[in-house]
Amino acid sequence: MSLPDQKQLLTARKRIAPYVHNTPVLTSSTFDTLAGAQVYFKCDNFQRMGAFKMRGAMHALACLSQDQLDKGVVTHSSGNFAQAVALAARIKQVKAKIVMPETAPAVKIEAVKGYGAEIVFCGPAPQDREDAVEQLIKKEDLTFVHPSNDLEVILGNSTCAQELIEEVQDLDAIVCPVGGGGILAGTALAAHWFSPNTKVFGAEPQAVDDAYRSLQSGKIEINPPSATSIADGLRTHLGDINFPIIQKLVSDIFCVDEQEITDAMWWVWQRMKIIIEPSSAVGVAAILRYKEELKGKKVGVIITGGNVDIRSLARS
Amino acid sequence: MSLPDQKQLLTARKRIAPYVHNTPVLTSSTFDTLAGAQVYFKCDNFQRMGAFKMRGAMHALACLSQDQLDKGVVTHSSGNFAQAVALAARIKQVKAKIVMPETAPAVKIEAVKGYGAEIVFCGPAPQDREDAVEQLIKKEDLTFVHPSNDLEVILGNSTCAQELIEEVQDLDAIVCPVGGGGILAGTALAAHWFSPNTKVFGAEPQAVDDAYRSLQSGKIEINPPSATSIADGLRTHLGDINFPIIQKLVSDIFCVDEQEITDAMWWVWQRMKIIIEPSSAVGVAAILRYKEELKGKKVGVIITGGNVDIRSLARS
Repeated sequence: MSLPDQKQLLTARKRIAPYVHNTPVLTSSTFDTLAGAQVYFKCDNFQRMGAFKMRGAMHALACLSQDQLDKGVVTHSSGNFAQAVALAARIKQVKAKIVMPETAPAVKIEAVKGYGAEIVFCGPAPQDREDAVEQLIKKEDLTFVHPSNDLEVILGNSTCAQELIEEVQDLDAIVCPVGGGGILAGTALAAHWFSPNTKVFGAEPQAVDDAYRSLQSGKIEINPPSATSIADGLRTHLGDINFPIIQKLVSDIFCVDEQEITDAMWWVWQRMKIIIEPSSAVGVAAILRYKEELKGKKVGVIITGGNVDIRSLARS
Repeated sequence: MSLPDQKQLLTARKRIAPYVHNTPVLTSSTFDTLAGAQVYFKCDNFQRMGAFKMRGAMHALACLSQDQLDKGVVTHSSGNFAQAVALAARIKQVKAKIVMPETAPAVKIEAVKGYGAEIVFCGPAPQDREDAVEQLIKKEDLTFVHPSNDLEVILGNSTCAQELIEEVQDLDAIVCPVGGGGILAGTALAAHWFSPNTKVFGAEPQAVDDAYRSLQSGKIEINPPSATSIADGLRTHLGDINFPIIQKLVSDIFCVDEQEITDAMWWVWQRMKIIIEPSSAVGVAAILRYKEELKGKKVGVIITGGNVDIRSLARS
């Protein structure tokens, strides 16, 4: 596999710059003391629609031909990527259909509708989802955009770490949550080309440690269907496009338990006054758990998003 | 009354600059659409110890003589000012005693202790508090710092709007919560000297509308002891030092009801991904309620703090 080159990353950044925020980098001296490191929080919870997914979705759509745009796009997601494609499609003024299970939470359905996309409901099994997408592609000639295993999506995601690296020089490490692998692959590419001395680490819930196991075994591993985590966005497995990038460029995967994720999330909410998703808290928790490895270092952490139902988490 | 001059404000800023954050200004295009205005959130919830009070406390301590510093300081507060004096005293390496009612929440007591201040408990009545402070001044020759009715505190608080005005030019208005009046007076002074075309509005819960009534009647009004608000930090009344400044420089006081405060707070938490206190939400709510007056304008809002027990508010 040959890696996407520097120019492709820069082009992606230029393409989506008018449509996404260059999000702020926050620090906390109290957290630094806890971690024994200098930590820079790259806050994509402040990104448009509340998550880094906007970057990849926007870039995927920016790369389509006029013919493809005229016909429209389709994706499946019940999470942030659904909203990202919906908003990106509205910006590009193209039709978007989002395949979601009938069991998706009403609030997520409303958010996608709010951005003007059409929802196509399917059954709860992964196969139902695939079938529904397949049908739409066949019937309406829509272009499918995968949430994480798509090179243009990965290049779009790389802009998050590109910005971080530009703002904070000489990072020793960047810690980035890994679910489907799209943001981790993008982050690793950005570090590789623009800050080659920066090591990139994935961060994953122990309960759904497929990426960790995939790096160990050298092939894409999946989680048992029964495996769950509070960071439910990280349950998905790697894909054949992002896995080789991750294999080549990522130093290690840090695993954290559920309590560590919850504690980190609450700490950031309460002390840093920002709302982050459980998936983002996985990266924060990893910095605290693996503090020996990061001791005294200058560490970036990708805060992937902030779309979370605060009330229901607070009550749980 | 003669107003503090421009130089005094600039000196205050210079004095405390090494010890406080120049906090970020955030915007939200979704909020702008709701409000029909361009709104700039000056985020002192990201200030050290989580609130603007750090500015005033730090400046008050920075103005003390060496003799006063050697003896130490005292204040009464069960809220943010207690933590602010505690942290400022730690920075200046002086003794601080904080008078708090025995009924203060454990979490606030722990926070003050965490910054190294000594707590002196008193009874629940306002008079108990006065008596305890009086005794400490007599016995230990401590210097009293008032949370809001102190010129040095007001000058310290003015640095928040000074930063905002420097970052965002040509604001038509700044909306600022009013409780004891310290941040409103400081904000009004900053606008008066550095952006004279910017109108300053106070924002207050209807349930504790003493500042509104004070501007109407021309004398300091108080709230009945039974009056409460979710924005409990705004129950206090104005003082003889800040009231003349507010009378002279503040255009109007906007009043909002409890539901509007709660709705605004949740909206900001959920959509902007930042934690703000109910007191800060009062300013946000005012912008939505008084949208006719602010229509199409460029409006700053002082986000005074973010020290709030998220779990208990989420459960209420």
